[in-house]
Amino acid sequence: MNPILVVGSVALDTVKTSAGFIEDGLGGSATYFSLAARYFAPILLVGVVGEDFPREHKALLRDRGIDCSGLETAAGETFRWSGKYGKDANVAKTLATHLNVFKDFRPKLDEAHRSAPVVFLANIDPELQSEVLSQMKEPALVACDTMNFWIDSKPAALKELLSKVDIFFCNEEEAEKLAKRPNPLQAAEVIASWGPSVVVVKKGEHGALMKIGSRIYIFPPYPMAEIKDPTGAGDTFAGGFLGYLASCGVYDDVGHLKRAMAYGTTMASFNVEDFSTRNIEDLDRDRIDERFHDFLDRMSVPRAEDLLKSRRPVAA
Amino acid sequence: MNPILVVGSVALDTVKTSAGFIEDGLGGSATYFSLAARYFAPILLVGVVGEDFPREHKALLRDRGIDCSGLETAAGETFRWSGKYGKDANVAKTLATHLNVFKDFRPKLDEAHRSAPVVFLANIDPELQSEVLSQMKEPALVACDTMNFWIDSKPAALKELLSKVDIFFCNEEEAEKLAKRPNPLQAAEVIASWGPSVVVVKKGEHGALMKIGSRIYIFPPYPMAEIKDPTGAGDTFAGGFLGYLASCGVYDDVGHLKRAMAYGTTMASFNVEDFSTRNIEDLDRDRIDERFHDFLDRMSVPRAEDLLKSRRPVAA
Repeated sequence: MNPILVVGSVALDTVKTSAGFIEDGLGGSATYFSLAARYFAPILLVGVVGEDFPREHKALLRDRGIDCSGLETAAGETFRWSGKYGKDANVAKTLATHLNVFKDFRPKLDEAHRSAPVVFLANIDPELQSEVLSQMKEPALVACDTMNFWIDSKPAALKELLSKVDIFFCNEEEAEKLAKRPNPLQAAEVIASWGPSVVVVKKGEHGALMKIGSRIYIFPPYPMAEIKDPTGAGDTFAGGFLGYLASCGVYDDVGHLKRAMAYGTTMASFNVEDFSTRNIEDLDRDRIDERFHDFLDRMSVPRAEDLLKSRRPVAA
Repeated sequence: MNPILVVGSVALDTVKTSAGFIEDGLGGSATYFSLAARYFAPILLVGVVGEDFPREHKALLRDRGIDCSGLETAAGETFRWSGKYGKDANVAKTLATHLNVFKDFRPKLDEAHRSAPVVFLANIDPELQSEVLSQMKEPALVACDTMNFWIDSKPAALKELLSKVDIFFCNEEEAEKLAKRPNPLQAAEVIASWGPSVVVVKKGEHGALMKIGSRIYIFPPYPMAEIKDPTGAGDTFAGGFLGYLASCGVYDDVGHLKRAMAYGTTMASFNVEDFSTRNIEDLDRDRIDERFHDFLDRMSVPRAEDLLKSRRPVAA
C-alpha cells in the first residue's frame, strides 16, 4: 500500500446554493481530498483546526481510517469559509474567509509523513507548499493545487513550486489567469513549460482535460441532472485521481493517468450530489466502481472490429 | 451504398469572427451537411438558389460528387445570412437574414429522392420538413435539425415533426428552449418523450451528448486551440454522423451511434478551422480517419486488463 500525504485546510464551510444552505459544514481542501482518496489508499492528513472544531468531525475522519496524527488543534477558531453559488455552479462567490488558526499554520511532518511516496499539496500558500515539499524524503509523485488568491498574490512562489511538482491540478479560470492565455489548451501548454509533466485542467460541468507532454487528453463530465453543492469538487477529484494512482503504484503511464481522470470525475460526481462531505463519507469501493464503469460505458466508443460483439439495439 | 437525401438551405454567408471576415461565402445547412457527409455516402441535395448563385459554388458541389439534380435555380436572389461571433464562439449574433428565393421554397422530390434510405431534414420550416417527409417512400432513418426561430414561431409543427423522426439534432440552447428545461439532460428527456429515439445535443466547444432510450452518452470536444469560424459546425456534425451510419447501413445500434458521434465531432472540428466550407471541401477519408482515431485516443480510457499492454510513459 502506498500512503498519500495531504497537507491543506480543514475548515467549517457555510454555503448557499440554489438547492439549499448549510452552516459550518465540514469542509476544507484536505478534508475533501482525504475522504475521497481513502477508498483507494492509506491517507496521512496534515492540517490544523481550532479548539471549536466539532469533536464529531474529527471522529468522522478517524473513523474513516484517515491518519489524523498530523491534524493539530491550535488555540483559536477553525478556518471558516462562506460562499454562494448562482445559476452557474462552476463559479463560487466568496462571502467571507476567516483564516483564524490557519493563518499561523506551519505544517509539522513526522517520520511517516516525510516517507510517504505520494504527496498532495492542497491549496495553501505556495511558499508553505514548497516548504512542506522540502521536508519530504523521496516522494515518487508530487501533486499540487492552488487558487486564484495565490495566483494574484504570489505568482513567483507558485511558479517556483510548479518547477518541483509532477502533477498540477487547476480549474479553467485559474489556468488562464496563471498562464495569461485565453483558453485552457494554450494555458496548459504554458504551465507545462514551467515544470509539471501532467497538467489537469478541470472545467466543472464541462468535464476536464489533461496535458501530458505535448498531448492533450479530453474527458466529458459525468452527466448530472442536478448539482446540489459543488464545494470541494476539485479536491474530491484530486482525491480520486491520486488515490487510484497510489493504489496502483504506477505514476508515469498514460493509461493509468487516464483511468485516474475517470476516477477523479467519478468521485467529484458523488460529492456534488449533496452538501459538504455528506455524500462521500460512506461510499464503498463497489459503489464507486459501479459509477466508474457506468461513466466509462457512457463515454467509450467501440472499435470498428468490436461493433458486432457489442451490439445494443436502440429500442432497449 | 445507402444514399442520403438532404433538404435544406444553400446560402451565401457574410460572417465576422475574431479571426477575420468573409463576404458571400458558400454556406447553408444543406451545403455544410452535404460536403461533410459525401466522404461517407452518396448525397442527394434538394434546395434552391437564386440566379446570382455563383457558378463556381455549384460546380464545387457537383465536383465533390454531390447529386445536385434537386438543387433548383429560381428567379431572384440566393438566401443570404450575415452574422458575427464574439468571444464565445458558441453564440452567433444574426445581423441580417434575407430569405429571398428560399421564402417560396417548396421542395420537389423525384423518384430517386423519395427512395433514399436516409433523410436529413436540415433546418427549414418544420411544416416543410413534414411535407418532405410525407413524400418519402420508406426511409430507414429520418433525422432533422431546427433552430430557435422555428422553436419560437412554430413549436406545434415542430413537435408534430419530432413524432415522426428517429434522430433529432439540436444545440444546448435550442434544447432547453424547446423543452422549457434548465439543463440539456432534462431537456433531452422531454424531447425524447415526443418521439425521437435518439436526441443529440451539441454543446459547441464543450462537446456533445446523445440520449438513447433512457441512457445519456457523453462526448468531449475535439481539442482546438483556435476556432476561426463556427458557422456550419452543427450541419457538418450531422453530416459526419449520418454519413457514417449510412456507410454502415446500421441505424439502430448504440455502438454505431457512438462512433457516429465521434465522426460528427471530427467533421465539425475540421469545419471550424477555416471560414465557410473551405476546410471541408478537399479532405479525404484517410485524413478524416486519422483525426477520428486521434480523437478516440485522446478520449479513450483503457480497461484495467489492458493497462500493461498499452503502456506509454509520461516522459514521451
